[in-house]
Amino acid sequence: MTKDAAIRELDALDRELVLLSHISSTLVWDQDATPPAAKSGRGEQLGYLDALIHNKATSGEMEEILSALGASADAPEGFDELPEHTRAVVRQRYRALLKEGKLSSDFVHNFSVLTARAHEVWTEARACDDFSLYEPVLRDLVVFIREKADRYGYEDDPYDPLLDSFEPGMKTGEVATLFGEMKKDLSQLLERMRGREPVEDSFLYQSYGKESLKEFNADVLKAMGFDSDRGIVGESTHPYTITLGSDDIRITTRYTEKSVLSPIYSIIHEGGHALYEMGMSSKGNRGTVVANAPSLSFHESQSRFWENIIGRSFAFWEHFYPKFSSLFPSQLSGVSLEQFYRAVNKVSPTAIRVDADEVTYSLHIILRFSLERKLLTGELEVRDLPQAWREGMKELLGIDITNDREGVLQDIHWSMGEFGYFPTYALGNLVGAQITNTLNSKIDIEDVVRTGDFEPIHTYLREHVYEKGALYDPKPLLHQLTGEDLKAHYFSDYLRQKYL
Amino acid sequence: MTKDAAIRELDALDRELVLLSHISSTLVWDQDATPPAAKSGRGEQLGYLDALIHNKATSGEMEEILSALGASADAPEGFDELPEHTRAVVRQRYRALLKEGKLSSDFVHNFSVLTARAHEVWTEARACDDFSLYEPVLRDLVVFIREKADRYGYEDDPYDPLLDSFEPGMKTGEVATLFGEMKKDLSQLLERMRGREPVEDSFLYQSYGKESLKEFNADVLKAMGFDSDRGIVGESTHPYTITLGSDDIRITTRYTEKSVLSPIYSIIHEGGHALYEMGMSSKGNRGTVVANAPSLSFHESQSRFWENIIGRSFAFWEHFYPKFSSLFPSQLSGVSLEQFYRAVNKVSPTAIRVDADEVTYSLHIILRFSLERKLLTGELEVRDLPQAWREGMKELLGIDITNDREGVLQDIHWSMGEFGYFPTYALGNLVGAQITNTLNSKIDIEDVVRTGDFEPIHTYLREHVYEKGALYDPKPLLHQLTGEDLKAHYFSDYLRQKYL
Repeated sequence: MTKDAAIRELDALDRELVLLSHISSTLVWDQDATPPAAKSGRGEQLGYLDALIHNKATSGEMEEILSALGASADAPEGFDELPEHTRAVVRQRYRALLKEGKLSSDFVHNFSVLTARAHEVWTEARACDDFSLYEPVLRDLVVFIREKADRYGYEDDPYDPLLDSFEPGMKTGEVATLFGEMKKDLSQLLERMRGREPVEDSFLYQSYGKESLKEFNADVLKAMGFDSDRGIVGESTHPYTITLGSDDIRITTRYTEKSVLSPIYSIIHEGGHALYEMGMSSKGNRGTVVANAPSLSFHESQSRFWENIIGRSFAFWEHFYPKFSSLFPSQLSGVSLEQFYRAVNKVSPTAIRVDADEVTYSLHIILRFSLERKLLTGELEVRDLPQAWREGMKELLGIDITNDREGVLQDIHWSMGEFGYFPTYALGNLVGAQITNTLNSKIDIEDVVRTGDFEPIHTYLREHVYEKGALYDPKPLLHQLTGEDLKAHYFSDYLRQKYL
Repeated sequence: MTKDAAIRELDALDRELVLLSHISSTLVWDQDATPPAAKSGRGEQLGYLDALIHNKATSGEMEEILSALGASADAPEGFDELPEHTRAVVRQRYRALLKEGKLSSDFVHNFSVLTARAHEVWTEARACDDFSLYEPVLRDLVVFIREKADRYGYEDDPYDPLLDSFEPGMKTGEVATLFGEMKKDLSQLLERMRGREPVEDSFLYQSYGKESLKEFNADVLKAMGFDSDRGIVGESTHPYTITLGSDDIRITTRYTEKSVLSPIYSIIHEGGHALYEMGMSSKGNRGTVVANAPSLSFHESQSRFWENIIGRSFAFWEHFYPKFSSLFPSQLSGVSLEQFYRAVNKVSPTAIRVDADEVTYSLHIILRFSLERKLLTGELEVRDLPQAWREGMKELLGIDITNDREGVLQDIHWSMGEFGYFPTYALGNLVGAQITNTLNSKIDIEDVVRTGDFEPIHTYLREHVYEKGALYDPKPLLHQLTGEDLKAHYFSDYLRQKYL
């Protein structure tokens, strides 16, 4: 195969795999709409697509093309003289070929079918607050996950290859070190904040009209630069972002929670993900595997940047509060901008991770990281998980968990087979704060936010982060952006400055 | 390949193709939800799936398996001693192999992408009432359709191979004969009804609460035997039925039309299709190509049976009117059961096919059949289509069409590349009336309907029609059911008895 032919064939196969992943996302998006008896049929369909993608990504054809482009253990990006985009495709596809090639097509299909069932069982168990319903299928899942780690292979830690699927090149030990620093910093910060007068926020817990909230959310998304020609906003029990095509990015929120902040911050958070997805597909990487974040922590850095650093800033509400309070004059009668801002930034340990404030959020993640590592090694049995959860929450956040719905059953992720995924949420806080530190040296973020026109921020991130996609691995990209490796202190610095 | 191995491999490949068609249906279902810029991306995805299905259905592997099972021009069902189900799979797959094998994968992909675009353009042209927007893409489509007919090949009429895709084994000449009879009978009937006092039905054109209508529709669907564990009801501009899995059958209705009858009869019509889909997937044919109607006219016979023969009967409203009028006491104040029944069965030529009554409906189809045959031969140019439409409506129904939105732009079908499809709607009326004639000799339909429990009717149809699926071709199945070939007179007899 000539090099030119190989470049063309790689491009075609790469685009085909991306298209198949978009088709699969459409089936996932539609999953909530299926009638009750159709759940397992949808699981089969998703399992079929997963296996099809797996087979194409690990096929002899893929191997032949990549080797014609010089990909090898010594040159994972192929020949030096390949175009930069092609080198990124080669790197991504070669890495997947080596790693996923260790799983059989049957393994992938069965894992996919199992997670579809686990998701269904988890939904029921959570609704009934009954961990015993979930326990057997979670046990099966842990067995599968262990086998997956074994098949992938590892040197030091079985958690490494799982983490690597979400954070290419990062080791469990590095996460443990960063999380150790973070735990220390956050605990100290919480300690220093102890004894403060409780923040009055009861006005958040009233009935706010859904239509007016939707109007407000639309305004915020527009200010962020969300392109409604290429995206839609829906509703779901758990807010999420999903990409069904290069021009089909969907986010959801929910209007069912008690606090009015839930629908707003869900939209800003998912909107941050959506800006990333839109940006990465807007230029040359569109429709290829390079239209991806280099890691999930990079993706999460953007959602949490918009949600917290922008959305919970005083400048943000300086701009938006007049509009917001005019939409809800009776609910916010007598509530000043300053009071509202304080309520939005109330720090108080909660049982539910997604309700957590900026300061305590990462502690929830640190607990999950520790538990899933123990599950993996067998140090912790699935049946003992609820108890370990309670103990961990008591130790890290000082609160008592009285039921599993607000404990171990709260998250969807394990039911989806996502082990090694949780750390990316806390790492995202670190990446976001580190990028913000650089951004602040180029743009006065506060000044921009106060105007309500976020275009300068969006433009910087689009050019330097979103459009890059997965052209570079996360570590070199972060270095390129900030001149440093990932550090824990930027996030702690940000929190200390804001809360002390 | 041994025979047993071939049976197993055929089963696996057949189920894979059905699964892919369900995945494709999910993408179609979701099409209304895509953001504006995503339409063409979705078209690419559908084109990819169509080509993938085409390639698998016409692959060397399929040919080898079918030939190992004895399929040949002389034995399209394979060896005599194969199980009945396998023979039906062989027949369906062998027929598709021969026929679709004449199209290239590129042709299939390009046709699919073209129809996605045509559908988009048609939507816009219809909204603006501007045929000139639609004309170029419709011209492209007609060129494609001609090429398709040429590639398929034919003896007498280029329309034959197109019709055959929807009505296996039926010839254009047979349709022309049946439609000739139908046209004569319907025109005579209309002539004999001329001069009757106009039916008062203004009470249908008021605001009826959507929630109460939904409640009523749910009651009707339940009485029909719609299994809400395996199906859902949605809303769309154009009501339709679609199958996303063996246990995932979806129907839609609309609440936007002026007449209250529109949402109700859409539900009953689509509910009829859904009962068929649910029944064909409930037993041994489930998940295979045999879980299909033998022809589209068979499918339509069931939707129109439930919509018209059951849903517009006096007995139906004897049962349902008390409930219905209690839901809408002010709208139906002073309207008796008899008045309501007359309004439901008002005969009056309309511009819009889907609003047509039972008597004039088939005349709309006869017009489309004639026009698409002429487009195909080139006797009629696309640019002259609107005028030909107006002349045809004047001749057949005696009405003047004043704009194309209510004329040639009203139907979605041509934009979807469906030529040879329209006749199945009128043929469905004939099949439905002929089956009803038999059913009436076994069950007193009127007596059953009056009770509001349609189970005996549903059971008969499920056993004799739905569960059979495509085990037999339409002609032998109709013969088995009614002892006769398809006749036009049962439908005319039914109408004359009802309306004269």
